[in-house]
Amino acid sequence: MTNLISKSAAYAAVDWGTSSFRLWLIDAEGNVLDERRSGEGMTTAAKAGFSTILESHLMALSAPTNLPVIICGMAGARQGWVEAGYVDVPAALPTVLTSAAVVSDPVRDIRILPGIAQRGSAPDVMRGEETQLLGARDPSVSGEQLFCMPGTHSKWVKLSGETVTGFASFMTGELFDLISKHSILQHAVKDAEKFDGSHPVFLAAIKAAFEQPARATNLVFTVRSGQLLDGLDATGAAARLSGTLIGAEIAGGMADGWQRKTLDAPIKLIASGRLADLYEAAFAALDLPFNTIDADEAVRRGLSQAAKTVFGNN
Amino acid sequence: MTNLISKSAAYAAVDWGTSSFRLWLIDAEGNVLDERRSGEGMTTAAKAGFSTILESHLMALSAPTNLPVIICGMAGARQGWVEAGYVDVPAALPTVLTSAAVVSDPVRDIRILPGIAQRGSAPDVMRGEETQLLGARDPSVSGEQLFCMPGTHSKWVKLSGETVTGFASFMTGELFDLISKHSILQHAVKDAEKFDGSHPVFLAAIKAAFEQPARATNLVFTVRSGQLLDGLDATGAAARLSGTLIGAEIAGGMADGWQRKTLDAPIKLIASGRLADLYEAAFAALDLPFNTIDADEAVRRGLSQAAKTVFGNN
Repeated sequence: MTNLISKSAAYAAVDWGTSSFRLWLIDAEGNVLDERRSGEGMTTAAKAGFSTILESHLMALSAPTNLPVIICGMAGARQGWVEAGYVDVPAALPTVLTSAAVVSDPVRDIRILPGIAQRGSAPDVMRGEETQLLGARDPSVSGEQLFCMPGTHSKWVKLSGETVTGFASFMTGELFDLISKHSILQHAVKDAEKFDGSHPVFLAAIKAAFEQPARATNLVFTVRSGQLLDGLDATGAAARLSGTLIGAEIAGGMADGWQRKTLDAPIKLIASGRLADLYEAAFAALDLPFNTIDADEAVRRGLSQAAKTVFGNN
Repeated sequence: MTNLISKSAAYAAVDWGTSSFRLWLIDAEGNVLDERRSGEGMTTAAKAGFSTILESHLMALSAPTNLPVIICGMAGARQGWVEAGYVDVPAALPTVLTSAAVVSDPVRDIRILPGIAQRGSAPDVMRGEETQLLGARDPSVSGEQLFCMPGTHSKWVKLSGETVTGFASFMTGELFDLISKHSILQHAVKDAEKFDGSHPVFLAAIKAAFEQPARATNLVFTVRSGQLLDGLDATGAAARLSGTLIGAEIAGGMADGWQRKTLDAPIKLIASGRLADLYEAAFAALDLPFNTIDADEAVRRGLSQAAKTVFGNN
């Protein structure tokens, strides 16, 4: 059956991040025929070989040997497969579609989409999120919109029509991980259970950090002192750490005068699964209007747009 | 000679932190006769034995077997030698002097000073800094003062006369260490040389983070993107990371309405060595008036006051 399915595939779309690999087989109508997910991100692939990993997944789906492949994400970084460069801010998103790097391969047509760079006093970079934006944007909206894309390095992006006019990365996910594993708080959060966006300690931390982001690293320390003095449990400790980092991020993402003054449209939250739940709860607690767009669907739609542009009318 | 010196010692004063041990032999007039420093902090001592480590240092200085010992710091924590409890905020500093825990020892009189705890909505704890405050305060000042005590977990303390009315810990030093060693920025700061407070990247980061503390984790990310896009070197990367964390801390330490409105006295900076240099440069860059008090001298003076109270008129 896989064989029959794969024969109708028009291209493979790959979101290749630092620590994750996702591949979809997609037909000419844009339907997903099959998919693969693994932890073989750029870090793994830089050692094992990008081509080896890609071909093993394509073979597992019995994909034709000449099926073209469109890729976004860290595979296009300097330390990735082939450097795909950056489109500079102000960055018209359609330019991303036409600026893919070509991977030299004897059989397949393989392309990697570029990232977006912001040069100047607030240097910043993204790889992969530009493709999510391509899939998430509503071409009928011509005004200014603010996108929040949570993750290891959350991105807050200003879009004016089809143009990225500015963005900022926040180290929220990585700091949560670092502090949980390596800091004095590791004992406080050990054995924490998964909490959801309704956890009262999470919501209180969201509000406290949003209102006083300057106190963020102090509020993080109260995870430890709350355990010592108030018997804060491990799950509450993790919820307070997460809420503090997310609340401070939202304050930072909204800090720009541009956002506060002209934001009349809801924030566009591009997220999936648990992150979507936590950020939705945070925005609701802060009375910030928002719409959620599924991150998986967004990146797949963005890759499909790129495939159409790059490989022609498949 | 050591023997002659040690014979005139009235007591030993010990500052026993999480990762450091410092001991001074002090005579009846408060003069330092000799000293020892090592990395045998609470973490090491919890395994090797507190008594073993203390006695080895006293023996190295040929201290009399009945010399009394006054201790401050993490040796009094629950996971330390003997739990010395906390004096609660609002905490009159003289109460610290009279609340030492007794270590059961067959020969010596050994006491450990308590810490200070802030209970309620902003739980916080200190151990060791209360003794620095004892040594740093000016008993002739009756008004409100703000103390900044930089370190692994920097403390900002409000003192009204002799009473600690509130304080906040910021994870500045620990975050610098964590991010430098374990985050995506580890490559950017690798091989950084020691920079001083005059480094222009440090000063620019101080100002940026102080003005927009909500953007702190974004500014930290620009260490990485600055390396990618602007060729920021390793020393500049470390300077930007340090300046961002310290600038955000100062914004947080000053954030309380109390500080902004009523702070007419200079900030009292209790610090030594490189930390004193960096924070002095930061305060100067932000036009914040300050006086520096040497942290080593402050803790020694505080321990001497405690020895006089606890051991009597030695």
